[in-house]
Amino acid sequence: MAVQSKTFKYKTRVKWDEARMGSLSCDDKPGIKVATPPEFKGHAGIWSPEDLFVAALSSCFMTTFLGTAEWKGLEFVSFECDAEGTLARPDKEFLFTHAILRPRVILPPDGDEELARWCLEFAENDCLIAHSIGTKISMEPEIILEAPEMMQL
Amino acid sequence: MAVQSKTFKYKTRVKWDEARMGSLSCDDKPGIKVATPPEFKGHAGIWSPEDLFVAALSSCFMTTFLGTAEWKGLEFVSFECDAEGTLARPDKEFLFTHAILRPRVILPPDGDEELARWCLEFAENDCLIAHSIGTKISMEPEIILEAPEMMQL
Repeated sequence: MAVQSKTFKYKTRVKWDEARMGSLSCDDKPGIKVATPPEFKGHAGIWSPEDLFVAALSSCFMTTFLGTAEWKGLEFVSFECDAEGTLARPDKEFLFTHAILRPRVILPPDGDEELARWCLEFAENDCLIAHSIGTKISMEPEIILEAPEMMQL
Repeated sequence: MAVQSKTFKYKTRVKWDEARMGSLSCDDKPGIKVATPPEFKGHAGIWSPEDLFVAALSSCFMTTFLGTAEWKGLEFVSFECDAEGTLARPDKEFLFTHAILRPRVILPPDGDEELARWCLEFAENDCLIAHSIGTKISMEPEIILEAPEMMQL
């Protein structure tokens, strides 16, 4: 039997603390508190599984973009991405039906806007979390050329 | 047009810091550092998007279990769940093909093992992150009756 490709394993642990709250752990990484969100009888101010789902998608999009930008030699000043996941019940079950990625990339004054757009689109298509979910994903990118006199905050 | 059900929005932001690292934020919740994992030219000791994906699934399974246990009146002493996601490339693209949930529930000495198993199976099927992903999920539950003389750590 031919091995098609290497596989990777990712392991986490979640432990119930009290009420609808728990603690996530993963190797020697900092712990993350997690809770049912308020709208499902849970707790405010704590990451929910729903938040983590959207975060997994948007951070994978970012890391894929970073790899793509390095590969294609794209120079950029900053990258951030707002993401919004919609949880709905089109049939019997709740699920994430749609997610919007709103990346904002700032390029140097002489930056390559076309290449930046290409890298964003490539990252959207190459994101392995996007491949793993049934959620429809759309992207609303913003690419900004830094003005020559613009100060970096 | 009939509205089938309420929808919920979940928003997060990710911002690139340096190298293949960034910071996740969500309302007034504690920030989470995120990075490409070492096996994809990234960084150790930081949550990766892959870890967050597995964490979203396992924590949703936990919160669904907590809600189910309350609904059915299941008494339990503790709950934790190890989860393992397998990233593979069965065709052209990497994706999470499989995830295993290994919940461990400790019940009081006179606990209802059958009801605990029912709640775990219900939670596995009712988990909204599970509904949102294409990953095949399997469960290997462990249900333990606390011995009357057992000390809680």
